[in-house]
Amino acid sequence: MASLKSWLPIPKSSHFSLANIPFGIISTASKSSPRPAVAIGDHVLDLQEFSASGAFSSLNIDVAVFSKPTLNDFAALGRPVHRSVREYLQEVFAENSTHADILKNNSSLQDKALLKRDQVTSHVPMHIGDYTDFYAGKNHAFNVGCLFRGPDNALQPNYTHLPVGYHGRASSIVVSGTPITRPNGQILEAPGSKVPIFSPCKRLDIELELGAFLCKGNTMGKNIPISEAAEHIFGYVLLNDWSARDIQAWEYVPLGPFLAKNFGSTISPWVVLADALEPFRTKGLDNDTQLLPYLQEKEDKNVYDIRLQVDITPAEGQETTNILNSNGSNLLFSFPQMLAHHSIGGCPMAVGDLLGSGTISGKDAGTEGSFLELSKGGKETIKLNGGIERKFLQDGDTVTLYGVSGNEETGLVGFGECSGKIIPAPKI
Amino acid sequence: MASLKSWLPIPKSSHFSLANIPFGIISTASKSSPRPAVAIGDHVLDLQEFSASGAFSSLNIDVAVFSKPTLNDFAALGRPVHRSVREYLQEVFAENSTHADILKNNSSLQDKALLKRDQVTSHVPMHIGDYTDFYAGKNHAFNVGCLFRGPDNALQPNYTHLPVGYHGRASSIVVSGTPITRPNGQILEAPGSKVPIFSPCKRLDIELELGAFLCKGNTMGKNIPISEAAEHIFGYVLLNDWSARDIQAWEYVPLGPFLAKNFGSTISPWVVLADALEPFRTKGLDNDTQLLPYLQEKEDKNVYDIRLQVDITPAEGQETTNILNSNGSNLLFSFPQMLAHHSIGGCPMAVGDLLGSGTISGKDAGTEGSFLELSKGGKETIKLNGGIERKFLQDGDTVTLYGVSGNEETGLVGFGECSGKIIPAPKI
Repeated sequence: MASLKSWLPIPKSSHFSLANIPFGIISTASKSSPRPAVAIGDHVLDLQEFSASGAFSSLNIDVAVFSKPTLNDFAALGRPVHRSVREYLQEVFAENSTHADILKNNSSLQDKALLKRDQVTSHVPMHIGDYTDFYAGKNHAFNVGCLFRGPDNALQPNYTHLPVGYHGRASSIVVSGTPITRPNGQILEAPGSKVPIFSPCKRLDIELELGAFLCKGNTMGKNIPISEAAEHIFGYVLLNDWSARDIQAWEYVPLGPFLAKNFGSTISPWVVLADALEPFRTKGLDNDTQLLPYLQEKEDKNVYDIRLQVDITPAEGQETTNILNSNGSNLLFSFPQMLAHHSIGGCPMAVGDLLGSGTISGKDAGTEGSFLELSKGGKETIKLNGGIERKFLQDGDTVTLYGVSGNEETGLVGFGECSGKIIPAPKI
Repeated sequence: MASLKSWLPIPKSSHFSLANIPFGIISTASKSSPRPAVAIGDHVLDLQEFSASGAFSSLNIDVAVFSKPTLNDFAALGRPVHRSVREYLQEVFAENSTHADILKNNSSLQDKALLKRDQVTSHVPMHIGDYTDFYAGKNHAFNVGCLFRGPDNALQPNYTHLPVGYHGRASSIVVSGTPITRPNGQILEAPGSKVPIFSPCKRLDIELELGAFLCKGNTMGKNIPISEAAEHIFGYVLLNDWSARDIQAWEYVPLGPFLAKNFGSTISPWVVLADALEPFRTKGLDNDTQLLPYLQEKEDKNVYDIRLQVDITPAEGQETTNILNSNGSNLLFSFPQMLAHHSIGGCPMAVGDLLGSGTISGKDAGTEGSFLELSKGGKETIKLNGGIERKFLQDGDTVTLYGVSGNEETGLVGFGECSGKIIPAPKI
C-alpha cells in the first residue's frame, strides 16, 4: 500500500494519517453547538463549515447530516456513502489534490473549517439507543474463569457456541477525558461473608475493549444475516468498560453485572470507519467448535490487527507506566458474528447502537486487559515506574487506552486516546 | 373517598374513572402525528387540541409539551405539575365543573379534542433511554430458584439485601397490541446436552410485571437518595416481559439473560400517575434482613394494592381463560428502593427511563406470574377453557395483562390492557 501524502503537515506518529479519516463530534469555544468533523493529523476538519461552503456538492449527498449534533444521520446514509466521503476527503487532502481549489488553495475555508485538534472539545459521537457488551475475548474469559472456578471449568459450556453478551447502560457511555467517579455500593468485606457493607468500591478496574457503532438496524422480529452484518457496522472506537469487581462479585448472581458496570464506560472520540480498518483484517482466536450456520462467516480474517496499549498515570506522580499491551485479534467472535447473534431472535437493532467486544487479553503475561487478570485477582502487585504499586485503581489515577494499526510508512490508522481519571466516591 | 362524578358518561367498570386520568400518546386516522392525551372512560382527551384552545391558560405551564410525540417533556416538568394538570382535568370533567365553559359547554372543543378511545392508536408513551428490569417479586424468585436449585438454595445470598436487577433492551419495548414474533435461537434439545441446536423457542413464556417511568434523572456520579426517589417517578404501566426459557437456560451463564428477553417486551399504553395510585399504598412482602441505610424507607406502605390478572386467548378458539391472578403488593422492594439502588454508584438515570419490577407472583396456586411457575417448569399442564392445554405459549395465542385498583363506587384506577399475540418464528 502506497503512502498517502498530504499538503497538510501530518506528523508521522499521528494516529490520524490520511489513511484513516475518522469521524467525530466537536464543539469549539467560539461555537458551542456540537457538529461533525474528521480528524487529520493535529487538525480536525469541521464538516459543517466545510459542507456549507459547497465542498461536497460533487457527491450528491444530503449535507444536512453535517449540521447534526451526532453522527447518526451521517451513519444512516450507509457504508457506500461513508466510503465516498472518506475517499473524497483523502483526495481533498492529498499532496497533489485534484480538488486543490476546494481547500488546499482556499485559505478562507481553511481558516473557518480547519481547526487545531487541541482547541476543540470532543463529544460522544453517536446518540446511543442501546449498548450491549459482549465477552468475546476468550483469553480474558478463561483467565477470569480460572480465578473463580479453576482451569477445568473456566469456560462455560455455551462459551464457544455463541458470543456471550449482556445489555449495558447506554446513558453511562462517556467520551475520553470525562472523569470517572468511584462508585459506592454493597460489597463483602471478607471472603465468605454473606452480609454486605456499604463502601466505596475497593477493587476498581478497567476492561480494554473495542466498540462498534451500527449504521443500520433491522425490523423487530427479523434477523440480520451474517452475510449482511458487516454492512451494518459504521466504525470502531476504543472502549474502557470500567468495572467495580467487589460490587460485581456480590451482585451478579443470577442476572449478571449491573451496578458494577453502569457508573461510567469511556469511549475514544473518533469513530474509525470500517473501511479504514479493512487493510488490517486478520484471523481471530481459533474455535474448534462447529458453529451453527447463522454464525458461520465466509471470511476467516474477521477481526483486526490493532495494537492495543494501556498506560496508567498514577495519582502520586506524573510518571506514566505502560502496564499492558494486547491486540485486537484476541477475539473468538467477530463483530459481524456478534451482530448476527444479537439479532437472531428478532431483537431490533438501530443506528447508533454500540457493541462492546469484551475484554481483549492476550495469552502472555503483560497482555491481560484488566487489573483483575494482571494482579491475579488482587493477589499480586503490579509494579509501576517510580516504585509505585497497584492491585486495583486508586483515586487520582488516570488510565489511557491506545489502539493503532499499520505503520508510519503507509500511515497509521489509530484511535487516539481513550482516557479517564478516577475521582473519589462521594460521601453518602 | 367520595366518588368523582363526571358530566361525561363513564362506565362504572372503566379503568379510566375520573379518579385516574392516565397519560398516553395517541394518533388518529385524520391526524397521524403522535401527541399526548389522557384516557377518561371510553374517551380520550387530545391534549394538543385541548391546550391549543387555551384551556390550560390558568395553569402557567409550557403547553409546548402537549405537542410532542412522547410524554418526556411533560414528565420532566415534575410531579407538582403533573398533579396540578391532573387535578385541573378532574375539575374540567367534574359533574358540577367550575370550568364548565372550558369543555362541558364547549361542543366545538369537544368535537375536536374528545375522541372515542376505540378510534385512536396508542404509541409507546415515552422515549425510553434505558430500560432496567428488576427481580423484586420474591415469590417468583423463590419459585424459579426452587425449580433450578431446590428450596434450600432457592434465593441467592444477595437477594434480600438489594433489589437484584439487570439492564434490559430499550429498543424492544412495544405498546400493547403489537404482535410478538417467537424468537429463533440456540437451545439444548435434551436436558444435560452440551451441544445446542438452532430452533424456534419451545418454551415461550410471559412475565407479569409493573413498570415505572422516570420523570427526573441525576447527574452521573451522584446518587438519588431514597428520601427523594418518589419524586423521580412519573407513573406506572403494566409490563409483560416475554421470555424464551430454553434460550435463557443455555445463554445466561455467566452474564445473565440476553436474547431470551430482547425480542419484545409489551407495556400498557396509559401511564397511571404516581399520584393516582397514592390511595392504594400498602405494605409489600416482609423482609427480615436489616437493609443498609441507603435502602431504608420511612414509609412502610411502599408498594401498591393493584389487582393483577392474566388472560389467555388461545390460537385454537376465541374462548378466553383467566390463568392467574396476583397483586402488585407481592414485591420485596419498592420502586423508590429500586431507584435508590440503581443510582447508588452514580449511574445516570434520565427522564423516560423504564424500571420493571420483576415478575409479580403470589404464594398460592394460580397466583404465579409466569407459565414457568404455573406449569412447574413445564412438568404440569395448565388447563384452559374448551379442553385446551398449555405448558408454554403456542403460535397464535394472545396474552392480556390487566391491573386495577380501587372499586366502582369511588372509581377504578386501572391500566387497561397490556396485550400481545404470538406470531410464528421466521424460517431462517
